[in-house]
Amino acid sequence: MSADQDPSATPDSSGPIPSSHSFKNKLMRMLWGMVQATLFRFSPRPLHGWRWFLLKLFGAQISTKARVYPRAKVWGPWNLIMDDFATLADDVDCYCVKPIRIGKRSTVSQYSYLCGATHDHEDPRLPLIPMEITIGEDVWVAADVFVAPGVTIGDGVVVGARSSVFGDLPEWTVCVGSPAKPKGPRNLGTKNGSVKPEDEQ
Amino acid sequence: MSADQDPSATPDSSGPIPSSHSFKNKLMRMLWGMVQATLFRFSPRPLHGWRWFLLKLFGAQISTKARVYPRAKVWGPWNLIMDDFATLADDVDCYCVKPIRIGKRSTVSQYSYLCGATHDHEDPRLPLIPMEITIGEDVWVAADVFVAPGVTIGDGVVVGARSSVFGDLPEWTVCVGSPAKPKGPRNLGTKNGSVKPEDEQ
Amino acid sequence: MSADQDPSATPDSSGPIPSSHSFKNKLMRMLWGMVQATLFRFSPRPLHGWRWFLLKLFGAQISTKARVYPRAKVWGPWNLIMDDFATLADDVDCYCVKPIRIGKRSTVSQYSYLCGATHDHEDPRLPLIPMEITIGEDVWVAADVFVAPGVTIGDGVVVGARSSVFGDLPEWTVCVGSPAKPKGPRNLGTKNGSVKPEDEQ
Repeated sequence: MSADQDPSATPDSSGPIPSSHSFKNKLMRMLWGMVQATLFRFSPRPLHGWRWFLLKLFGAQISTKARVYPRAKVWGPWNLIMDDFATLADDVDCYCVKPIRIGKRSTVSQYSYLCGATHDHEDPRLPLIPMEITIGEDVWVAADVFVAPGVTIGDGVVVGARSSVFGDLPEWTVCVGSPAKPKGPRNLGTKNGSVKPEDEQ
Repeated sequence: MSADQDPSATPDSSGPIPSSHSFKNKLMRMLWGMVQATLFRFSPRPLHGWRWFLLKLFGAQISTKARVYPRAKVWGPWNLIMDDFATLADDVDCYCVKPIRIGKRSTVSQYSYLCGATHDHEDPRLPLIPMEITIGEDVWVAADVFVAPGVTIGDGVVVGARSSVFGDLPEWTVCVGSPAKPKGPRNLGTKNGSVKPEDEQ
Repeated sequence: MSADQDPSATPDSSGPIPSSHSFKNKLMRMLWGMVQATLFRFSPRPLHGWRWFLLKLFGAQISTKARVYPRAKVWGPWNLIMDDFATLADDVDCYCVKPIRIGKRSTVSQYSYLCGATHDHEDPRLPLIPMEITIGEDVWVAADVFVAPGVTIGDGVVVGARSSVFGDLPEWTVCVGSPAKPKGPRNLGTKNGSVKPEDEQ
């Protein structure tokens, strides 16, 4: 399913429920929101180091070699974990209410949405249920892909553009559709004499 | 399916057709466009009362208990009808060329698109065909859902993230896919000892 | 599949690969980026001539009768080819790394994404593969449609809202789904006594 960007947007029959977030969390989000809307978003594209610094300042576990483009949206940097050469393209929405991990050399392309929370729709109060998302190494999540809460995408996976990922995806496969399913193996490094990064398949 | 945000964007073989909107409508839209891009969009998130006031000023029939987040886009507030605790999240596009109704305690989550008009594609002039959209009570439209012109979503429905709704959806069902179809009943209030808001099912 | 908005976003195991774009290309894109974010985007909606002028200045082959709305995004005008009354609506992303052609009287509606490049995912360096997109005459690409690299959409086609086009579409058909497929003929001009613009079907 999915979740509302602001958990306090969840109404119930007796009025809005108290937010599941603490005061400190709210304060941090407010500060980060202001930083993201200004210093982050309007930074020149090549200044990856500057954006790394801002994310780090707010608690991200992020490699100095990772790249986050200026129009990427990060809900809370304190839940963002990115390894070497991991990349979030412009217009990606990284809704990390719980930790979202992106492995080495993995790219999430434009307009994709890593949706890290859903609501319990059997409870009239629709309480927020944050869930982790894990993206392995050497993954390419192509454009406008939806990744549901709780999903693990295995190493080496390619997710085709516009797919919606509602369940885990097995390593070194090319997956497409909604829900995304493997349609074949991913053969990495069979061209140009390059070497596969792992001994996959 | 669907429609162009500005009806005057519709060309035909002999040049642009006259807009189907009156001068007063155009003036109101221009004024509202300026208000939305400034006073509305950049208002602090908790100031629901301020945004309620702006929507009301432009003719919305909106409960003081409804919530519209600052980055939600409303085409024309004069066609927006929202009951108690109805919620439009950030980045929802509410294209209400005709009335769009959102019932009590219903939430439309981020990136969803309530598309209230299509074009007649059998006419070379592609004339605009506005159609109403009705969302019942206790509905949750999850993230990045498309709702087509003319659709009615019954009370208590959950529409899963990324679904596309091209036809009416029956009450108290969980619906997913494209086109969205019921995949089971929605059991609300079976948890936590809460009471169902209505005597549904 | 699809592509990353900025080709330099593509990492590999030994670090970022050199961009496939020349210095002149990068300079032009930087200049155009600044123009688009200011003079273009914030121009009044009716000023189609002004936006035509800006696109032309950056090398677009665009009819004076074409229309590009202010919030449409064009990656590089030098690869944009638009004939009379061709229209790009607001919030269309026209990712023209290679030429994108839009024929007479064809409209691309809001939120649609003409994605003119993919990556070679069998090469660990994920090199960019730009591919042309061709949209014929009298086409209507409805809202939130994805058009993949290399696709040709025939004259007179209607692509339903939210569809994803991964292969060529035959002339004068109505196509929907993901992948989009013909579901019937498009009968244009059978209403209101109008004449079909061509002797199609």
